[in-house]
Amino acid sequence: MKDPIPESTVARLPRYLRCLSDIAVSEAKCSSEELAEAAGVNSAQIRKDFSYLGAYGTRGVGYDIADLSSQIRTVLGLTRTYPVVIVGAGNLGNALTNYGGFRAWGFEIVAVVDIDPNKVGQPVDGLTIEPMHDLVRIVDDNSIEIGIIATPASAAQTTVNRLADAGVTSILNLAPIILKAPDGVQIRRVDLSTELGILAYHRNT
Amino acid sequence: MKDPIPESTVARLPRYLRCLSDIAVSEAKCSSEELAEAAGVNSAQIRKDFSYLGAYGTRGVGYDIADLSSQIRTVLGLTRTYPVVIVGAGNLGNALTNYGGFRAWGFEIVAVVDIDPNKVGQPVDGLTIEPMHDLVRIVDDNSIEIGIIATPASAAQTTVNRLADAGVTSILNLAPIILKAPDGVQIRRVDLSTELGILAYHRNT
Repeated sequence: MKDPIPESTVARLPRYLRCLSDIAVSEAKCSSEELAEAAGVNSAQIRKDFSYLGAYGTRGVGYDIADLSSQIRTVLGLTRTYPVVIVGAGNLGNALTNYGGFRAWGFEIVAVVDIDPNKVGQPVDGLTIEPMHDLVRIVDDNSIEIGIIATPASAAQTTVNRLADAGVTSILNLAPIILKAPDGVQIRRVDLSTELGILAYHRNT
Repeated sequence: MKDPIPESTVARLPRYLRCLSDIAVSEAKCSSEELAEAAGVNSAQIRKDFSYLGAYGTRGVGYDIADLSSQIRTVLGLTRTYPVVIVGAGNLGNALTNYGGFRAWGFEIVAVVDIDPNKVGQPVDGLTIEPMHDLVRIVDDNSIEIGIIATPASAAQTTVNRLADAGVTSILNLAPIILKAPDGVQIRRVDLSTELGILAYHRNT
């Protein structure tokens, strides 16, 4: 077992990792101040968060980006590939299948399923859309652990239940609705409105 | 001028608002513990964040959801409608145009533009895709303040610059690439990989 890391720190670690990757385009080291600015937190928070990882920068030099990124990846479990299924081959599902940002983190979209027989069999970014009724087999064949819900809101809870029945235990929900997690399943929700909400605040300050 | 609210609190306020809206489906009051669980933070953090708003719950009763939501909306500036333009009418742009979650927050998609002449003139969710070269007029005609970038990564920086030239000062970037903000423009980036990163962590603990 790992030492417990506060949930709020865990939530910031992927953001740091993303910022480090951005900074690494031009530099090999970065200060906590530089990372703090990129990540939108204060530098004291950065140093505290990294203390849970046992990562300490060198005074006047900062953190080695490659080392620090590697430590964050290890803590988050991003040292292997996770097969992912996307449910819903509408605009959102297809956009996610084509989304260039997943693979670098080890998330590989291995299947896209839809309930619409007119979509089944159609190609999307090198994959073929498969029927929802094959979900159990698809999850099993590909050892899928993570599902992304890109269905309409009205179909999202049914989809969670079916993913759970098929053995998927981690779900990212992009439908604009709150979902009930079956036992042993964790759901994270992305609500794009919240990001716009932060933009709105800064328009008014 | 408002009193300064810490940036980390601002970043949590939209999440609280979203959670309050979810809880309000079944209840009129909620405790800081209930909201803390829904929002994935601890209840001390909730009480501290709300103290910046001057919002204090009643012991044993909790917060009035309608009052608290109204206070958060006022602080964030979500008491009016923001016209929004989406640039990029591919799968992602069309998914966002159809996304049901924006309007409830006051974000109204009033225009979708694309550089592809084959897309211009096509309908998407009640709008007609307009040509990128009309961006200045479109922003002006609709008093647009917020732009969402749903272009391929390769076109995203050019798009930021053109939005800025047209007078848009708040940008939400969904392309998986870091962008340089022109003077006076703020950019927020949504990277869906970071959410999957948090899911991955919990698979390993």
